[in-house]
Amino acid sequence: MWSTIGQLGEFGLIERVTARFPGTDDVILGPGDDAAIVSAPDGRVVATTDVLVETRHFRREWSSAEDVGRKAAAQNIADIAAMGARPTALLVGFAAPPDVPVSWAEELAEGLRAECAFAGAAVVGGDTVSAGEITLAITALGDLEGRSAVRRDGALPGDVVAVAGSLGLSSAGFALLEAGVHGAADAGSDEADPGWLRCLGEHRRPRPPYADGPGAARLGARAMLDVSDGLVQDLGHVAQAGTVVIDLDSAAFVPEPELSEAVVLLHELGRTGRGALEHMLFGGEDHALAAAFPPEAELPPQWRVIGTVSAPGADGPRVAVDGASVSARGWEHFR
Amino acid sequence: MWSTIGQLGEFGLIERVTARFPGTDDVILGPGDDAAIVSAPDGRVVATTDVLVETRHFRREWSSAEDVGRKAAAQNIADIAAMGARPTALLVGFAAPPDVPVSWAEELAEGLRAECAFAGAAVVGGDTVSAGEITLAITALGDLEGRSAVRRDGALPGDVVAVAGSLGLSSAGFALLEAGVHGAADAGSDEADPGWLRCLGEHRRPRPPYADGPGAARLGARAMLDVSDGLVQDLGHVAQAGTVVIDLDSAAFVPEPELSEAVVLLHELGRTGRGALEHMLFGGEDHALAAAFPPEAELPPQWRVIGTVSAPGADGPRVAVDGASVSARGWEHFR
Repeated sequence: MWSTIGQLGEFGLIERVTARFPGTDDVILGPGDDAAIVSAPDGRVVATTDVLVETRHFRREWSSAEDVGRKAAAQNIADIAAMGARPTALLVGFAAPPDVPVSWAEELAEGLRAECAFAGAAVVGGDTVSAGEITLAITALGDLEGRSAVRRDGALPGDVVAVAGSLGLSSAGFALLEAGVHGAADAGSDEADPGWLRCLGEHRRPRPPYADGPGAARLGARAMLDVSDGLVQDLGHVAQAGTVVIDLDSAAFVPEPELSEAVVLLHELGRTGRGALEHMLFGGEDHALAAAFPPEAELPPQWRVIGTVSAPGADGPRVAVDGASVSARGWEHFR
Repeated sequence: MWSTIGQLGEFGLIERVTARFPGTDDVILGPGDDAAIVSAPDGRVVATTDVLVETRHFRREWSSAEDVGRKAAAQNIADIAAMGARPTALLVGFAAPPDVPVSWAEELAEGLRAECAFAGAAVVGGDTVSAGEITLAITALGDLEGRSAVRRDGALPGDVVAVAGSLGLSSAGFALLEAGVHGAADAGSDEADPGWLRCLGEHRRPRPPYADGPGAARLGARAMLDVSDGLVQDLGHVAQAGTVVIDLDSAAFVPEPELSEAVVLLHELGRTGRGALEHMLFGGEDHALAAAFPPEAELPPQWRVIGTVSAPGADGPRVAVDGASVSARGWEHFR
């Protein structure tokens, strides 16, 4: 038996993992040819690419291979949903050292498959190469189903800003991992299932509200994006692109109980840097969707109104909390 | 001024390079949003991903950044053409150490832009992240324009096998680079422009015959792929997928004069491993197109007939040269 991907070889690995990837009605031709063929009934295709690098975007000691696969798929599918599109397909570039266990690659593939299945998409192709560090390059495709895309630049003064999905849990989960808490046992918890454990789960496997992307488009959303770098930083793009001010109402930021629990635990561990509101404003990677809707939009409960859009004053486009400008403290890569 | 991409930062780098990427009629929404939107008038989209890693797939001392960009784009666009599709768009994942010069990234972007322009496509999106080694993950999209895709599995006994594009030049160029010949001066050549120099050029910037992909589909090609790992290895996929024997006629392999010159120079340098025929049969990365056509197809001159398809005997599907089975000696990654 082959225990590492170097022993198994490129073609053996491809054969092993592509067997896991079932098709959908959108898959006209799956893995194995020069290219895949995916349905694009709308006559337009939505496409996005993200690259994840070990140590920088995930750690094998913090996340299982299946976690990494689910997260890699999720963050790309969330970008498709954030355009108001229905996800159809994923392509996977996988670079890894030859000593990576075959089982790790198989579990990664299982994570990709499972998240695609959850979102209604399918893995249709990819590439595997040898490299010094594990790198995943995911491309997601989607279909607009005849709708207009919801871009970043359409917010208008008077619009309301609303969010679907979790805020801050992934960030708190990351802080817990940094503090050495990898599971309930690490924190000495006697409870069977402490609430803050969910923050670890959301960090490892974010659960973007995929269906709310097309849903927002149907509700008339004028601008939308997925919260990947942090709400303030990401809404900064909406403010800049639309030349508007986005004023967030701190009272509208009600932390989920599991986030509050995690913040308490972090404080007990001496990690006092961020409160729940800071995690919600500046923490990324939950892949919630944030959108600007016309004030008359009738929003279903999963869309929580968190602020309003107004015309820029002398300060120009910006994001404010309770009227006070706030700067993005999300990540900027390379720096 | 920022001299490295680490100093410039992710967003600065994206702003700097995306300014280089003009749209085309197919680009509905280019870089800058959660995802790009590309036309897919056929109602199906063809999609492929390749990953290139420094040292393994290119070397900065052997190729300029523009070369790397052109080659990365070319090998993906060739995969689109090999399905019989018209290339429309590229997405670019770029992982690199922070100390990579901004100028290198800009020249890479220029190479991507130029190759896309040559093929009629456009860079529509991507991602940049910090990493330990330079890795490029390219996804190419294409449109079938109402035609059936030309897959690997359609070759029938009685078909002719033909090739469009160069064979062996990239492989000979790689051998020259390995022998220390990076340009005319390295080989002590007095000629202003020795022919073998073209092999270095083809290795650095392959020129796949993009238009011959859709052209082959119109000519009735029953199976097609692009020659990336070596002709014998790649035709092995056609043989296996179609359950046929592909018999190549060595007399049909007339080396281009520049390949012959390179082989002479390589022999002078003591590199006697491969003759011209071996480079043509086993060398990869020219990204020629190889296809099986019905015997009655009237092939234009760029398609050179190199063999025939027959029903498998007791040995099963295989590739043969002058009737003798030949095994793939192309690369297999990881091993």
